[in-house]
Amino acid sequence: MRVTVSRKAHFNAAHRLYNCDWSDERNDAMFGKCANPHFHGHNYELIVSVTGEIDPETGYVMDMKVLKDLIASEVEEAFDHKNLNEQVPEFKTLNPTAENISVVIWQKLRPLIPTSLDLEITLYETPRNYVTFKGE
Amino acid sequence: MRVTVSRKAHFNAAHRLYNCDWSDERNDAMFGKCANPHFHGHNYELIVSVTGEIDPETGYVMDMKVLKDLIASEVEEAFDHKNLNEQVPEFKTLNPTAENISVVIWQKLRPLIPTSLDLEITLYETPRNYVTFKGE
Amino acid sequence: MRVTVSRKAHFNAAHRLYNCDWSDERNDAMFGKCANPHFHGHNYELIVSVTGEIDPETGYVMDMKVLKDLIASEVEEAFDHKNLNEQVPEFKTLNPTAENISVVIWQKLRPLIPTSLDLEITLYETPRNYVTFKGE
Amino acid sequence: MRVTVSRKAHFNAAHRLYNCDWSDERNDAMFGKCANPHFHGHNYELIVSVTGEIDPETGYVMDMKVLKDLIASEVEEAFDHKNLNEQVPEFKTLNPTAENISVVIWQKLRPLIPTSLDLEITLYETPRNYVTFKGE
Amino acid sequence: MRVTVSRKAHFNAAHRLYNCDWSDERNDAMFGKCANPHFHGHNYELIVSVTGEIDPETGYVMDMKVLKDLIASEVEEAFDHKNLNEQVPEFKTLNPTAENISVVIWQKLRPLIPTSLDLEITLYETPRNYVTFKGE
Amino acid sequence: MRVTVSRKAHFNAAHRLYNCDWSDERNDAMFGKCANPHFHGHNYELIVSVTGEIDPETGYVMDMKVLKDLIASEVEEAFDHKNLNEQVPEFKTLNPTAENISVVIWQKLRPLIPTSLDLEITLYETPRNYVTFKGE
Repeated sequence: MRVTVSRKAHFNAAHRLYNCDWSDERNDAMFGKCANPHFHGHNYELIVSVTGEIDPETGYVMDMKVLKDLIASEVEEAFDHKNLNEQVPEFKTLNPTAENISVVIWQKLRPLIPTSLDLEITLYETPRNYVTFKGE
Repeated sequence: MRVTVSRKAHFNAAHRLYNCDWSDERNDAMFGKCANPHFHGHNYELIVSVTGEIDPETGYVMDMKVLKDLIASEVEEAFDHKNLNEQVPEFKTLNPTAENISVVIWQKLRPLIPTSLDLEITLYETPRNYVTFKGE
Repeated sequence: MRVTVSRKAHFNAAHRLYNCDWSDERNDAMFGKCANPHFHGHNYELIVSVTGEIDPETGYVMDMKVLKDLIASEVEEAFDHKNLNEQVPEFKTLNPTAENISVVIWQKLRPLIPTSLDLEITLYETPRNYVTFKGE
Repeated sequence: MRVTVSRKAHFNAAHRLYNCDWSDERNDAMFGKCANPHFHGHNYELIVSVTGEIDPETGYVMDMKVLKDLIASEVEEAFDHKNLNEQVPEFKTLNPTAENISVVIWQKLRPLIPTSLDLEITLYETPRNYVTFKGE
Repeated sequence: MRVTVSRKAHFNAAHRLYNCDWSDERNDAMFGKCANPHFHGHNYELIVSVTGEIDPETGYVMDMKVLKDLIASEVEEAFDHKNLNEQVPEFKTLNPTAENISVVIWQKLRPLIPTSLDLEITLYETPRNYVTFKGE
Repeated sequence: MRVTVSRKAHFNAAHRLYNCDWSDERNDAMFGKCANPHFHGHNYELIVSVTGEIDPETGYVMDMKVLKDLIASEVEEAFDHKNLNEQVPEFKTLNPTAENISVVIWQKLRPLIPTSLDLEITLYETPRNYVTFKGE
């Protein structure tokens, strides 16, 4: 009886796409207006999904209140109303694309979720662009 | 040419989270306000997905009108505007968490869907919490 | 420079439609399955809108953090995970239709919002049914 | 570090469901009002998902601007504001069910996406009916 | 205690934009791909709103079941899975723009709604384009 | 026959809330994390609504292609992927709250819309916070 349980959250942040090993010209050519040095921003919508057996006593795979609190302390506290490039240590040198942000969120949550549960991160950068990372 | 075809439906129901083998105190400690003995309720949004080969004559994996009618007779008729704990036999002793509701819906529909088709249930308890069960 | 500022919130609750001055038969005839004595429930989505002049110093009509906290203390605290008929005093004798719930929310918030601001309540009972009350 | 990146798009089109090897009576019996010879139509919502390794230099699995342009030139240009049965060559004899449309879109895009990336098509025919095809 | 009560519905239809008093060239110049003589189509999302006093006995402005049935018989039955230009008499000579469709729906429903209630029609032609008509 | 026609658009931008006549301490006290000097950002969803008579020849209140192009050239070109405080002249000294942004958009579009049409701006700063300005 393996069930996937998903919880939505969100955070608002500024970022720019920038490879710090490249010249500004090469960044502009690759990332266009996303490389704007004055930054732009997004309302990121996050879905955290955990998959595992239903506990026969509680009927839960995982208590959603616990997961909600983990997302708040590990992701929202760290990213919400922040400049990802300048204020979030993981992105000092890592380009904050949606792909890389989803990997960082997975890496932050993975040690805090029981190992018997699979973890998947879905991140909407805009209502039309989103990414999914399963740790594979 | 295996395609997954999904159909959305919904039902409104009251429930409370409660393990009938536990004391009220233990239920309160585990389930908090979800254990309120006067019940609360949800607009459950349901997605039923079937996966199989496209029939070359019809271009269908399964006729969605047939699936819509099955959902209506097996799920909506049984659950809509009901108290899950008190009026739905499956939950007389089974705690009606979203996880357990998704399993019960899968078990009700599985015998009525051709065995050549895989079946997956997604159930939104709120716009921010949902579960998925594939029968595994 | 009059602007309307809107804030969304939500609560989950059980209710039944029932006029306590009527017989059960008349309630059943009028309200159908909504009169189920075991209750059913909804994810109510609430939009609270205030209209007034922009404060030239803050650029705000009203601080949304203040409005968010008012909604939490006056509406969510009182209604969320409750049985409206049995646990919310305003509905002991008042039928908890979406129309009446919107009026009660307006009456609870009106004294706490500055009189220079107009107040409007929109309440979704389901994704397909909603009501709006402006206090007129 | 395999990530799935998804891009949404849409197109509006007319169609009817019709197997040209069948009599009109058999088409009517199978497809009901969907076989209306005067056509009906939909706002098709399309999600194109590609899965692959993150490029360590760009932080991208695939540049979404490139994918957006491919969807525009291959799908929107071909299908938007068209009559699928009469004006899209792939459906001259193939019944334009959502299942078949998703397969055709996959076949049009597959040669243009790097072979190192997996491709999945999700197509909403209405907000309540959608299909997914992974090329399997 | 005037409350507005709104009910959502939908229908799928084909149409083309065309002024039958104009040449094809002038229609093409004005309506572009929307004038395609082979038609295109939409999932129309409809919101019907009625405004009036709350009945103190029922707590209703209007019974939503009655409104739902009126929308089904007057709008969905007439428009769903139809070609608006060819199969709906109101559009034989009237151009089926979203504006004109909303007026026609208002005119069909107005005689069937109690005169004490105001009536407003909102019609989404696509998720990004919609119109509202109040009968003024 | 006055109809309101609405068109949705969006842009992504960075901003901070800041009154340049106040001390940093006063800004922090009033705007909290929204005053972060490193900026944060949003996916702004914009709805532009125009109200007027239906043109009997076209069936349009206003050609939506014209309105779409006006929004693109006046709003998206000026605001998308920009830092509102640093790169948009209107906000050099005006605090870019949602209220003030909606007024600025109204002021930019008003001279370009026929005077016979009313203009209303709705701006979502997040899915839970939005504002409406009618020019009154």
